[in-house]
Amino acid sequence: MSDATRVSSGQIGRSLPRVEARAKVTGAAEYIHNLRLPGMLYGKICRSTVPHGRILRIDASAAAAIPGVHRIVTAEDIRTVIAEPYYGPAFHDQPILAEGKVRHVGEPVAVVLATDPHIAEEAAQAIVVEYAPLPAVFDEIEAMNSAAIVHDILKPAGTFPDLKHLAGRSGTNVALDFHLRRGDTERAFAAAEHIFEHSFRTQQVMHTPLEPHVSLADAADGGVTIHSATQTPSFVRIEIARLLGWPENRVRVKTAFLGGGFGAKVYVKLEALAVALSLLARRPVKLALTMEEQFFTISKHASTFRIKSAVDGHGHITARQCQVFYNGGAYADIGPRVAQKSGFTATGPYDIPNVAIDSYEIYTNRPPAGALRGFGVPQLVWAYESHTDLIARALGRDPVEFRRRNLLRDGAPQATGTVMRDAAISAVLDRLAARLAWDQPFDRGAGTLKRGRGLAIGFKASISPTTSVATVAIAADGSCILYCGTVDMGQGSTTAMAQIAAEALGIEAEAVRVVAPDTDVTPYDMGTLGSRSLFHMGNAVRLAAQDARDKLAALAAETGVPPGANLPISEQFRRKYGMQAGTIVGAGSYIPAYAPPDSATGLTPNATPFWMVGGAGAEVEIDTETGRVRVLRLVNVADAGTPINPGIVETQLTGAAIMQLGFTLFEEMQFTDGQLRNPSLAEYKIPGIRDMPDRIEAETVDSAQQSGPYGAKGVGETGTFAVSPAIANAIEDAVGVRISELPITAEAVYRALRRAAGDQLEDL
Amino acid sequence: MSDATRVSSGQIGRSLPRVEARAKVTGAAEYIHNLRLPGMLYGKICRSTVPHGRILRIDASAAAAIPGVHRIVTAEDIRTVIAEPYYGPAFHDQPILAEGKVRHVGEPVAVVLATDPHIAEEAAQAIVVEYAPLPAVFDEIEAMNSAAIVHDILKPAGTFPDLKHLAGRSGTNVALDFHLRRGDTERAFAAAEHIFEHSFRTQQVMHTPLEPHVSLADAADGGVTIHSATQTPSFVRIEIARLLGWPENRVRVKTAFLGGGFGAKVYVKLEALAVALSLLARRPVKLALTMEEQFFTISKHASTFRIKSAVDGHGHITARQCQVFYNGGAYADIGPRVAQKSGFTATGPYDIPNVAIDSYEIYTNRPPAGALRGFGVPQLVWAYESHTDLIARALGRDPVEFRRRNLLRDGAPQATGTVMRDAAISAVLDRLAARLAWDQPFDRGAGTLKRGRGLAIGFKASISPTTSVATVAIAADGSCILYCGTVDMGQGSTTAMAQIAAEALGIEAEAVRVVAPDTDVTPYDMGTLGSRSLFHMGNAVRLAAQDARDKLAALAAETGVPPGANLPISEQFRRKYGMQAGTIVGAGSYIPAYAPPDSATGLTPNATPFWMVGGAGAEVEIDTETGRVRVLRLVNVADAGTPINPGIVETQLTGAAIMQLGFTLFEEMQFTDGQLRNPSLAEYKIPGIRDMPDRIEAETVDSAQQSGPYGAKGVGETGTFAVSPAIANAIEDAVGVRISELPITAEAVYRALRRAAGDQLEDL
Repeated sequence: MSDATRVSSGQIGRSLPRVEARAKVTGAAEYIHNLRLPGMLYGKICRSTVPHGRILRIDASAAAAIPGVHRIVTAEDIRTVIAEPYYGPAFHDQPILAEGKVRHVGEPVAVVLATDPHIAEEAAQAIVVEYAPLPAVFDEIEAMNSAAIVHDILKPAGTFPDLKHLAGRSGTNVALDFHLRRGDTERAFAAAEHIFEHSFRTQQVMHTPLEPHVSLADAADGGVTIHSATQTPSFVRIEIARLLGWPENRVRVKTAFLGGGFGAKVYVKLEALAVALSLLARRPVKLALTMEEQFFTISKHASTFRIKSAVDGHGHITARQCQVFYNGGAYADIGPRVAQKSGFTATGPYDIPNVAIDSYEIYTNRPPAGALRGFGVPQLVWAYESHTDLIARALGRDPVEFRRRNLLRDGAPQATGTVMRDAAISAVLDRLAARLAWDQPFDRGAGTLKRGRGLAIGFKASISPTTSVATVAIAADGSCILYCGTVDMGQGSTTAMAQIAAEALGIEAEAVRVVAPDTDVTPYDMGTLGSRSLFHMGNAVRLAAQDARDKLAALAAETGVPPGANLPISEQFRRKYGMQAGTIVGAGSYIPAYAPPDSATGLTPNATPFWMVGGAGAEVEIDTETGRVRVLRLVNVADAGTPINPGIVETQLTGAAIMQLGFTLFEEMQFTDGQLRNPSLAEYKIPGIRDMPDRIEAETVDSAQQSGPYGAKGVGETGTFAVSPAIANAIEDAVGVRISELPITAEAVYRALRRAAGDQLEDL
Repeated sequence: MSDATRVSSGQIGRSLPRVEARAKVTGAAEYIHNLRLPGMLYGKICRSTVPHGRILRIDASAAAAIPGVHRIVTAEDIRTVIAEPYYGPAFHDQPILAEGKVRHVGEPVAVVLATDPHIAEEAAQAIVVEYAPLPAVFDEIEAMNSAAIVHDILKPAGTFPDLKHLAGRSGTNVALDFHLRRGDTERAFAAAEHIFEHSFRTQQVMHTPLEPHVSLADAADGGVTIHSATQTPSFVRIEIARLLGWPENRVRVKTAFLGGGFGAKVYVKLEALAVALSLLARRPVKLALTMEEQFFTISKHASTFRIKSAVDGHGHITARQCQVFYNGGAYADIGPRVAQKSGFTATGPYDIPNVAIDSYEIYTNRPPAGALRGFGVPQLVWAYESHTDLIARALGRDPVEFRRRNLLRDGAPQATGTVMRDAAISAVLDRLAARLAWDQPFDRGAGTLKRGRGLAIGFKASISPTTSVATVAIAADGSCILYCGTVDMGQGSTTAMAQIAAEALGIEAEAVRVVAPDTDVTPYDMGTLGSRSLFHMGNAVRLAAQDARDKLAALAAETGVPPGANLPISEQFRRKYGMQAGTIVGAGSYIPAYAPPDSATGLTPNATPFWMVGGAGAEVEIDTETGRVRVLRLVNVADAGTPINPGIVETQLTGAAIMQLGFTLFEEMQFTDGQLRNPSLAEYKIPGIRDMPDRIEAETVDSAQQSGPYGAKGVGETGTFAVSPAIANAIEDAVGVRISELPITAEAVYRALRRAAGDQLEDL
């Protein structure tokens, strides 16, 4: 008899090793890059060389003449299979291939289909495209009032009712403006004891999943199967069905394991192009990007944040104004949602009675920006927690005490008016301070090596409202298969979902097998993004397993088993079906309660199903001769509710912190006139092992998300929130200079030190 | 908006073209023979050359030396991965590879694994096996009392409680003996006006699916995926899990379209061997049989039927004794169930108060026999309907009138005691007689071409109790996917199931997509066999769709839609989820009520969930100079309940009749001392286009199976029942000779004519 039929419990809080670990280390794990189908063609994209321009001529004659080239495809061809070839989750603004004009360097203009990927690449380079340049704009602030207009007219997707009012708006680069007003900010500022105003910027960076984007489409017999490294199989299915005018059940989207996602692989990326190519070629077509091509595909918003706070004589923040400008690049992707959903937390985890927030998503002629682990929130925390330290320092208050005095507490309303519940903000701050021994003396370094420490705390709402559906099938021997569309991209979701299902079923997590997302098999899920899966899908999985358990109980009752008899599942089946036969299918669907924000005030009584809270503390050492920043210690403390798998939660927090460390100290997409100067990992530096802090720690506070599955909530992004300002605050603590722009390179620190010393520095 | 959201009905009784037709004619349809996996090895089987013998030595040295050969595998190797390598649905008597002894010619003894199938074949022929011959037995009657014992001990599978008493029985070739006693046969015979006794025989034949057996196993990472042309994916999953000692959820069985099955591809055939080979080689392994190898894999029972009837002065049959001997070959396969389940209908569709049935499954040293389209019943009908005509003729009664006088009618008990319900026996006979214009003069032919006509009627129980489970997933646009494990092997089940789901959902059948069976995806189904799918799975599908419809109604109610508002499904989703999101999952499980037969009397109040009734009429022309039989007209009339898809029902009836026509006139596995003389389609003749009757017709009577989905019941086997005796009866009508052994070759008729004319014929 298998383990499956043993009645068990205690699956929550188990640091079960990841169930897919063995497959990954033995090489058995499947990735789409390894997939080949008979008769498959390889597509290679010819990309725009100018940031904004009209396409005058595409000369593919030389490319087409190369042996092995099957066909060259341009926008004109796409139109023969997709009538209106524009896609996007928030706006239908992105052409499958550029039509008439290009809007950023690296935009797909044409595709070569060939029997070999190297031939395709050679031929793609042989395509000659002539452009008539158009005026371009790259900076988000300039773009607010530029004569260079990226899109003639706004085309919001019909799927978001609250974006519909934007339809047809023209002559602007503002894709979305979100406004929130609460209290009387003007009066509060007039009455303020102190007013502080700062501006902060962040750079454009890349997700850098080590598995680049890849999609393989196989259109045949009135349907299409898309194998894609996507975080959102259900979304891709619906969007491709919309583009083709087909019912959903003719579109199948399959994923495998993802070699990282971080928001790069949400919504449609290569899928629409791959489908169009397969329809044109009547053969399977694979599009697999290089690392370099990812820079032109999707990125994280550069941003500018102007923040202004009023503080009274007791050190209470009485009012705050925030202006956030997100540089969305040439296509909106999910940027409008970033501007809106992060925007309403721009005032930070503080109890501020009067707030005014303006948050903007702005088109520019850069590669598009979308969601990246934190969905705009790390940009905000960077600003507001740098600002917090600047205020505390200016007021001569201890940064922890000043924060504590102003913290949002459960039961108090957040800026939106939503009353806080189950957000352990105080606990996170307290634990962080304790862990850093904040009240103890600290070694300040010596000579040219100065040491400092800093901390920061941030919070984030979850994307809402979104739906997850799961099903559970129990075989006659009691073993179980869980069907959920959550994509395991390294975050350990498969393991956690197995634990939740097992807990609800009263079996061991090892007896649950979780199948890979496949829209023909796994029911709808909005997507693996925004730290939503553990909460939303976790709830759906719990409901599905409970439904199955209820059906098992009914089966037992039907066959005369008295309640509480605790018969093995296999025996319950046998009594009903007379042999090892049957399947019990349980289904669970979860959508949290939600109230959309009022369009005028931005207020809502129910902005999010749960709050993520993350604090970071950094101890740094600055070489004052070179500006080099060495992070000695990086501590992350989070409210993750009740961890389902504490081991995985810890690696999630640590991984996120390391990612944000790269964005803080190194990473930057560098442009000159819209041309990306460093589109390769040789020139675009991500953290290496020698960049790791000497000590990196992660901890969760004792907490429970009442509405979550077994008290759990998402934690995928939490570790990113507070890293950047904690480091900047530590730097100021060490050497007294304030860096207000990311990344904090050695050069930036060196320049700040020299500037503080009164030296004149010419621009490099 | 897709068709799916239009509310519709009238899906039952639609002769919708088969939904897979386009994929099949364009070549897009998938078959396992076309499947190749990276790193895959090809296996080729070395088979026994003797019918019974001890294996003295296997010399694979020459084979192993052939370049490209990966490995040679024997029973010893199998034991290293499967501890007890014996399988079978009724008995665990069949070794994965022969251990110590072989029991029939063609039994698998060793396997070559090679990188190329041709190399594997060459190497398999290079293996030298030495045998010490053992006494063998081939005839089912001789085997009843032979000193040659095929199996030392009986090993019934634990899955069938009613076979458990056979465990450990030794010294016998009788694998199962079934006995039924009702009334007082002895007294009835003593009181009889007339007593008739005859004996009939049938030959061993093959299923001849034009797609030979093929299985591909891929064992990796603690699980195994088996791609197999099987009619019983769920059974294979459970049986492989049993052999490996793994839980069911680690075994995945996937099918594709089957190029015919007819019962050849039920239970485990190549799958256990393929799995063991993949575990040994740690690579995917494909086993694909040639047509020739199929003759040694599974076949239809040869049989002997001794039948004796008592008739009173009014032409009523008052008692009947039946002795049926099924030649099961060397391994039981499902033979014991054939003996039992068909056995209890051996007295025919007649109302006979006193019956005694003895039915035997007998081991011999022939290739194994199992289920073939009719599950033993065509052998029975052949006998009892030849017998019926012989009686009518002897009594000078019209065959139709004599049958009508004795028919079982609804409300009367069948031999088992089960009261007949929804079996349109009278209607089938009446319609058949009408269609043949039985009461009209008939052209008797001229010269050496004599014409005659005959009819016959048979019935069959369904296999019981068995379970089917189905699920339905409705996407947010109203399009639908149906998950059911029924295998489409040409019978049109995909189309019929889509119609049933659509009817229950109130949508068009075209909006339902049915996925291929895959035990990871489609819930449990006992198997696609015994004409059970339309009834059992049809009921499960109907229940699943109704469950989904109920959930849709609940969704509508939840979102404030008044009952009867008839909102499109897509709008119901949108109101609940705020966007195109969500999946509604409906589940349905069906197992009919059943009562097993009493072990002493064979009686039961509930032998089957439904009865299939089939009648055939034949008009033949005999060339008296050569014995050649030409079938001028073949009429099939059936009770199929209410046809879901009348067009498919008609082709099912016709296809079955043509198959049985082959068994009646041509097909025969010919043995000499256990050696099969004609294992190829060059020597084993199946019907060709020139063998078709000039007219072939099929019709269903007005009928409804109350317990079936929308009144339907299975029809896959019905067309086979009565073809053979109808032709034999027509031959006697034409030329006055009675053939009692199949096949009715020209030679057999010629010999009978000559014998009737008093000529002496020496044996050929």
